[in-house]
Amino acid sequence: MDAIDVIRTKRDGRALSAEQIAWVVDAYTRGEVADEQMSALAMAILLRGMERGEIGRWTEAMIRSGSRMDWSGLDLPTTDKHSTGGVGDKITLPLAPLVAACGAYVPQLSGRGLGHTGGTLDKLESIPGWRASLSNDEMLAVLREAGAVVCAAGDGLAPADKKLYALRDVTGTVESIPLIASSIMSKKIAEGTGALVLDVKVGSGAFMKDTTTARELARTMVELGTDHGVATVALLTAMDRPLGLAVGNALEVAESVEVLAGGGPSDVVELTVRLAREMLAAAGVSGKDPETALKDGSAMDSWRRMIRAQGGDPGAPLPVAAETLEVAAPASGVLSRLDAYAVGLAAWRLGAGRARKEDAVSPGAGVTLHAKPGDTVQEGRPLLTLHADEPGRFSRALEALEGAYEVGTGADPTLLPLVIDRITA
Amino acid sequence: MDAIDVIRTKRDGRALSAEQIAWVVDAYTRGEVADEQMSALAMAILLRGMERGEIGRWTEAMIRSGSRMDWSGLDLPTTDKHSTGGVGDKITLPLAPLVAACGAYVPQLSGRGLGHTGGTLDKLESIPGWRASLSNDEMLAVLREAGAVVCAAGDGLAPADKKLYALRDVTGTVESIPLIASSIMSKKIAEGTGALVLDVKVGSGAFMKDTTTARELARTMVELGTDHGVATVALLTAMDRPLGLAVGNALEVAESVEVLAGGGPSDVVELTVRLAREMLAAAGVSGKDPETALKDGSAMDSWRRMIRAQGGDPGAPLPVAAETLEVAAPASGVLSRLDAYAVGLAAWRLGAGRARKEDAVSPGAGVTLHAKPGDTVQEGRPLLTLHADEPGRFSRALEALEGAYEVGTGADPTLLPLVIDRITA
Repeated sequence: MDAIDVIRTKRDGRALSAEQIAWVVDAYTRGEVADEQMSALAMAILLRGMERGEIGRWTEAMIRSGSRMDWSGLDLPTTDKHSTGGVGDKITLPLAPLVAACGAYVPQLSGRGLGHTGGTLDKLESIPGWRASLSNDEMLAVLREAGAVVCAAGDGLAPADKKLYALRDVTGTVESIPLIASSIMSKKIAEGTGALVLDVKVGSGAFMKDTTTARELARTMVELGTDHGVATVALLTAMDRPLGLAVGNALEVAESVEVLAGGGPSDVVELTVRLAREMLAAAGVSGKDPETALKDGSAMDSWRRMIRAQGGDPGAPLPVAAETLEVAAPASGVLSRLDAYAVGLAAWRLGAGRARKEDAVSPGAGVTLHAKPGDTVQEGRPLLTLHADEPGRFSRALEALEGAYEVGTGADPTLLPLVIDRITA
Repeated sequence: MDAIDVIRTKRDGRALSAEQIAWVVDAYTRGEVADEQMSALAMAILLRGMERGEIGRWTEAMIRSGSRMDWSGLDLPTTDKHSTGGVGDKITLPLAPLVAACGAYVPQLSGRGLGHTGGTLDKLESIPGWRASLSNDEMLAVLREAGAVVCAAGDGLAPADKKLYALRDVTGTVESIPLIASSIMSKKIAEGTGALVLDVKVGSGAFMKDTTTARELARTMVELGTDHGVATVALLTAMDRPLGLAVGNALEVAESVEVLAGGGPSDVVELTVRLAREMLAAAGVSGKDPETALKDGSAMDSWRRMIRAQGGDPGAPLPVAAETLEVAAPASGVLSRLDAYAVGLAAWRLGAGRARKEDAVSPGAGVTLHAKPGDTVQEGRPLLTLHADEPGRFSRALEALEGAYEVGTGADPTLLPLVIDRITA
């Protein structure tokens, strides 16, 4: 096998053979295929595409580059959720313990934020004492104790994907549906979950800006999961405005706890319950109803056990940013729109996100919303509150918010419904 | 400027701006843009193409990455030829001194062979004592002494192209007309020639297998030369069978000397004279006719001066391979075809070419032809002679020649005419 032949095959629009895919992924992981060869191949894949069979074999090769976890020894089915990422998307936090409270195990390997979307691990790390890194044995112990575990993926899980993702990030080859789908699904399949619900976000604050592309990504991932024996379903959900009223690490933890306590913003509650039902159905579990588990405190119990089992103190006060700044509504009327990307960018600039992998995040930084599109606002009253550790961060956050919201006579009719579509195999 | 933005621009099918091109080529040469970024960009250029203006600016950036030679102080015009490479293509050897004998200077920077096509410098190096590496001052002295100089390009000439070419070679991004054209033309323009004739080879033994692609490459290069003030014309010529009767370094030098002595195979003579006339016309020189210069010995005088001025002994015996093997005609009749690629591959395997840049070539190795397509052959009489230093090389050369020739009742009617087309600005 020769890297140049593999590149030429895809460059000239032909399908890669099973042997070519297995070889090139393995040789790249071992360093035998050079970065400059893999980036040329990634660009050829981006521009020429891959067939369903190729994507499956590519994903398989990613999985085989590392170890695959196995939860078959557990007494209940496993089920998980993956979101493609959005602004204010803290759903995993209430969702994982909620599903655990309803009778399934949730073994979730999660990631950190980069750019304008936050990462689940960054959010949980704002809880004093909470640890993201667990050994496989610790992960199993947390699962048995709390029914749910959210932790960082170890180096042994799809190492080929880790290496390839870092390469795609600097070579303009991120935006390929086959490569995005195989990257996400290789990690989720290697994680060993029996069922999977994909939350594919659509809109300015999401990676996928339009419904057509999001649907294509969702379908590709559902096919991959199904082909690998994981019961997979996808929801397309709105990310043209932020989810909930809090954007930023500790701010989102607080909002998640509100939801677990039976309160919280209606869109977060609605999406959490909907995803919980999908996760339970995909796993074939028909135990407690999620709405009940939020009301009777069992989801909150699960949350507390999960946080405690990972070293965190669920009762400790959360970090608060040193400085705040109110942004007032510019007029009275109805908030017609509030752009998700602009709010995410503002939160990022306030310190909630990182520009480089090595950077630390500010746990208290972010944006809180006092209204959502469709809500009535009054001129001069607070529309947003910005939170930052240093007041010098406010000006660039305000720049990001210029033109991001509008007050009119009603909600923008082009706003997406919260759940746009449901994709099954 | 950011490499990822430049890559995305081309990936998404848009034209690169003048600023983007100047920046990315310069930053790549300085090592600020990484190999894996440039290879992704090269693949995007290969699959998306470039407009005439972009190719011109890309070429300009390649030239500006190094120094540009200047022959304006000479008393006669300069003119040069570049061939895209073929099997048995030794034309530069008789051509450069021939044109010098007719009243123009030929300052040719040339290359070495890689793969199945030979390199002019490798051929000349089979002459005892001859040196390919000259300083700029030495180059000028040889030009003044002999009217022609053929030597290696120094490191200062289009270094960006040198770096990019090595990268394209291992990333499946060689076959892009804009990148091929800018690579060739950046070196020829930086070489400082006032006029240029391009010999674009077509057929199995050439880089361009079909006339359509060859014509596109020729047109692109003629446009580039013209846009940069070099009087440029291109011929499309046949490379479906070898050129002449000798393939291999010293074997081709011997054939070239025959041509300079007024003999030699008719196709080599015809193409040499045709290219000489084009080079003189492009330079605006109407001195001695090339056919006369071959007959009256003045071209041979120029050759001897040129070889001597570069340390070579034009009278010394040429290296001869230790072993030969005759390949007999399989039947009596007319040789209908003799595939150029197969003969090139055989010569390569006999030791005439190199697999890696670092390898040495065997000066005596190669293939001599006893007939060309259209010639009568007799069963059992020699059709080819193989030359090698070690007899162990013959079997793989014979393998390369399997199915490469056919004896029938006449020449294959699909054989290309020697000169297929002429492309001007």
